[in-house]
Amino acid sequence: MNIEKKTEIPQETIRRLSLYLRMLRRLKTQKVKVASSDKITKFLNISSEQFRKDLSYFGEFGCRGVGYNVNFLIRAIEKILGTDKICRIAVIGVGKLGTALIGYPGFTDFKFQIVAAFDNDSAKIGKKIENLIVLDSADVKKELKRLAVKMVILAVPAFAANSVSEDLAKCGIKAILNFSPININRHRDLCVSNVDVACELEGLAYRLKKKMKE
Amino acid sequence: MNIEKKTEIPQETIRRLSLYLRMLRRLKTQKVKVASSDKITKFLNISSEQFRKDLSYFGEFGCRGVGYNVNFLIRAIEKILGTDKICRIAVIGVGKLGTALIGYPGFTDFKFQIVAAFDNDSAKIGKKIENLIVLDSADVKKELKRLAVKMVILAVPAFAANSVSEDLAKCGIKAILNFSPININRHRDLCVSNVDVACELEGLAYRLKKKMKE
Repeated sequence: MNIEKKTEIPQETIRRLSLYLRMLRRLKTQKVKVASSDKITKFLNISSEQFRKDLSYFGEFGCRGVGYNVNFLIRAIEKILGTDKICRIAVIGVGKLGTALIGYPGFTDFKFQIVAAFDNDSAKIGKKIENLIVLDSADVKKELKRLAVKMVILAVPAFAANSVSEDLAKCGIKAILNFSPININRHRDLCVSNVDVACELEGLAYRLKKKMKE
Repeated sequence: MNIEKKTEIPQETIRRLSLYLRMLRRLKTQKVKVASSDKITKFLNISSEQFRKDLSYFGEFGCRGVGYNVNFLIRAIEKILGTDKICRIAVIGVGKLGTALIGYPGFTDFKFQIVAAFDNDSAKIGKKIENLIVLDSADVKKELKRLAVKMVILAVPAFAANSVSEDLAKCGIKAILNFSPININRHRDLCVSNVDVACELEGLAYRLKKKMKE
């Protein structure tokens, strides 16, 4: 099995791998051992051709006429994504959104662990959220190093997002999932993914407008 | 000005239009009246060529050697996206994430208004979140009609997401921004956009892994 050829993998393929993984885990909990591509893609609104094409970037995983071994494919996709090992994450900014993300139920079955939460508000420092004590942002460098965190969820106010992300890059953070309502400047040492709720709504509004015209 | 030619517009272009809009609004608050493409794209990590290409799908908006009239371009992009009028939104499910989204600060400057919140938990119904009284999910059809809501933010548990979205389609809802950690089945009458925090983290983990190898 040739995991990962030298081709450039489309970002959408990576996103779909996550979805396949979610579905495969669901099948696993249903004690399904072997599944067809149709079964895996049925509820995802993705064609089985697309599924096979996405997997083909990374090698051969199924048996013609038999299907896919669920456990094997879960492990293979986790390995491709680099999520086969525990990934330790810190949340920076425990306003309402940050707090909600600490308790996010969608991490079940994933190897993401939120191991620390930080804020610069003295009213929040020391408080308990889920099973974490909120730490002082002033200690972020020391604590992230101690906890071996490489990935951060950022949920600070827009005005603070850029300076905080610069500081995080200096602390050795390599990846930021940014929920602050601003596109943060790309730092050359950082992988950044922005989740902007208002932009998502605008995208939907556009599709809705287009649909109404059809 | 020829807003919207018949070409299929890439989804990424629509996403970038949202980002341009955010930047233009920021420039407007800074009292900037005319801005170059460089100025608009500088903090977005998008090239000015890309900016001009994205706009070119919809017509001519700038003056060569002068730049873009900020107010005019804001109105033009809002019109393209269909967000030039107030858009009334309901949040379904006021757990931690739903509650955080009701108070999301990123809607400032946008014409999105959260006008209702629903839950089926009697302990939550009647409680006040921000300036909204949580309504009973049993009344969703009546209330959404009364409030003329067409777009919904869904933040219910994964197991409930599909049946709730089916019900919403029957209530005349046309678009769902789904935060429930499951990809909801596409209903032919619905535009759906899924925000899956764990999938976002997996995408980041993959990019991080790739970067480490470089």
